[in-house]
Amino acid sequence: MKDQRLANVLEKMQTMNLSQMVVTSPAAIYYLTGKWISTGERMIALYINADGNHKFIINKLFPLQEDLGIEVIWFTDNDNAIEILSKVVKKDKVLGVDKFWPAQYLIGLMEFNAVKGFVNSSSIIDELRMIKDEEEKELMRKSSQINDRVMQIFLRELKEGCTEKYYARLLQEIYENEGAQGFSFDPIIGYGANAADPHHENDDTKLKKGDSIVIDIGGVYNHYCSDMTRTVFFGEEPSKEDREVYEIVKTANLNAIAKVKDGVKFSEIDAAARNYIDDKGYGKYFTHRTGHSVGLEIHDKGDVSSINHEEVKEGMIFSIEPGIYLPGKIGVRIEDLVLVTKDGAEILNSVSKEVTIIK
Amino acid sequence: MKDQRLANVLEKMQTMNLSQMVVTSPAAIYYLTGKWISTGERMIALYINADGNHKFIINKLFPLQEDLGIEVIWFTDNDNAIEILSKVVKKDKVLGVDKFWPAQYLIGLMEFNAVKGFVNSSSIIDELRMIKDEEEKELMRKSSQINDRVMQIFLRELKEGCTEKYYARLLQEIYENEGAQGFSFDPIIGYGANAADPHHENDDTKLKKGDSIVIDIGGVYNHYCSDMTRTVFFGEEPSKEDREVYEIVKTANLNAIAKVKDGVKFSEIDAAARNYIDDKGYGKYFTHRTGHSVGLEIHDKGDVSSINHEEVKEGMIFSIEPGIYLPGKIGVRIEDLVLVTKDGAEILNSVSKEVTIIK
Repeated sequence: MKDQRLANVLEKMQTMNLSQMVVTSPAAIYYLTGKWISTGERMIALYINADGNHKFIINKLFPLQEDLGIEVIWFTDNDNAIEILSKVVKKDKVLGVDKFWPAQYLIGLMEFNAVKGFVNSSSIIDELRMIKDEEEKELMRKSSQINDRVMQIFLRELKEGCTEKYYARLLQEIYENEGAQGFSFDPIIGYGANAADPHHENDDTKLKKGDSIVIDIGGVYNHYCSDMTRTVFFGEEPSKEDREVYEIVKTANLNAIAKVKDGVKFSEIDAAARNYIDDKGYGKYFTHRTGHSVGLEIHDKGDVSSINHEEVKEGMIFSIEPGIYLPGKIGVRIEDLVLVTKDGAEILNSVSKEVTIIK
Repeated sequence: MKDQRLANVLEKMQTMNLSQMVVTSPAAIYYLTGKWISTGERMIALYINADGNHKFIINKLFPLQEDLGIEVIWFTDNDNAIEILSKVVKKDKVLGVDKFWPAQYLIGLMEFNAVKGFVNSSSIIDELRMIKDEEEKELMRKSSQINDRVMQIFLRELKEGCTEKYYARLLQEIYENEGAQGFSFDPIIGYGANAADPHHENDDTKLKKGDSIVIDIGGVYNHYCSDMTRTVFFGEEPSKEDREVYEIVKTANLNAIAKVKDGVKFSEIDAAARNYIDDKGYGKYFTHRTGHSVGLEIHDKGDVSSINHEEVKEGMIFSIEPGIYLPGKIGVRIEDLVLVTKDGAEILNSVSKEVTIIK
């Protein structure tokens, strides 16, 4: 068990006046135990009780290689896992559960009349996960370093006539070769006007001279996600308008990053990008939030958006990814991950953001 | 809306004495509406009421291209979707919900005190989906025809020195070229003893002469899944023992298929494969159920296992996939999808099951 993290969870439970909860999502279980266990449709529950009497309920099909310092209750496919859990929880208390826990388990506990009621307690671990500790910062840096290498290798592979789908497949190989364990999300490769369509999926469009290319990619390294976007031009100088749009997005990206430091509101960072794009007359073509938190999951809790007035804190990591999308013409997005520091931001990506023409 | 399917749902609800339910999984919504809508973390609910007053509650980010013949209630990211649903459901009645519906929604409805109670009503649609109608049978046949072609093309690509991971990636391209929309599950490519390890994941092992190769693959065609396994030998004749194991698995596969017809129990089909393997002395190396139902999802409700004593019915489609796994030596699995008919089975796969040596 990660003792400091568990202590933080218990402290938050006390604040919420919550005496028991089950942690069930693989990312949250990993955060507390250091073990990533995907049990698919089979129940798993890390039961946390304020009195310290924690238990880990797992199907025997997923053996643990080591002692986690917590009592483990094993069950098999022939057991009723919910009945076992119903005997562990305290009947006279409310139970905190994960926001994505399947309804069948909740209904099962109701049928056993196992607890006094339920609350959604995901925010406890979601909020702790927003602030990365030193171990996590280092893993996030390494994950983004891999992403930088993948992007550089990828840019050298761009050739006339190859399809978006081909490149999406090729990326899988590049990530594996560079030491990632796979994608953190399905890569987006969008040529020309395709990149302006929010519903576009990688297709059989062939790369041709004069195309812009939006490349939005990320990998997983030791469970930590990377995420970066670059937009490059293929074979020819961009048109005057395309270059102008590119420079606006780049400046919006830099403005937002310049705004980042401990204590600033997420919404102020969003505004730093959005107001600049607005001022340049492209406001209605920047159709999404400026960024999202990243960590064990590609979308951690905490958006860089106009409606999130929470303050960012030292140790948070999120994306800064403004974009301009001109329907039928071009899409441009430029994205980095940033780590909030006391006085500013550490940028986790280092691939150039200058106008790049692939010859 | 698929009227006949909806009528079947309403009939089953009546049998369960259930007057209202929400259908929320993409496959179940597709089954009733003919539209596959993946809303990710955003709520979606097809509300079915026994009185015929159905409603479809959807985020505006997922526009429908046509009138589905059901009242649609649209919401945005600024609305509280659960509050909207809480006003639609009948307060004095129990609500049926999907087994995988995230707990946050259930807890939200509880907080609004929106209904009398909850039951897991997934079995209603899960059980209807077990019996394929003519439209579904045709799609399942086409999906398996694509899988047959993919397997044939794949076998011609086998070359010394190529890794399991390489072939898993290559398969993506082959499926797309053959008209599938992707994998129905991550392909399993296992060389030699790797295929005997149930926890093995495709890795960088290189194919070499004398290897056996387990190839367990499936694609998606118009939302319907295929699933087939073949085991072939690379470069050399199999050893006497390997050939014997192969022939036992093949006969077990054929015996189980021969048992299939309307009215036979799943457990009897399982026994037809299992008893033969037992008799040959390899019982303890056949470590899993004989098969599982397949349709809109790769694992539909209904296992071909020793503990499932339900009767199979005309129109059901499931896998027959006995295997023998000798740790450190070899794994052999042979799998087809079969469609239950009145008097027997229609086998949806046609790739040869004879001993195949790839030269």
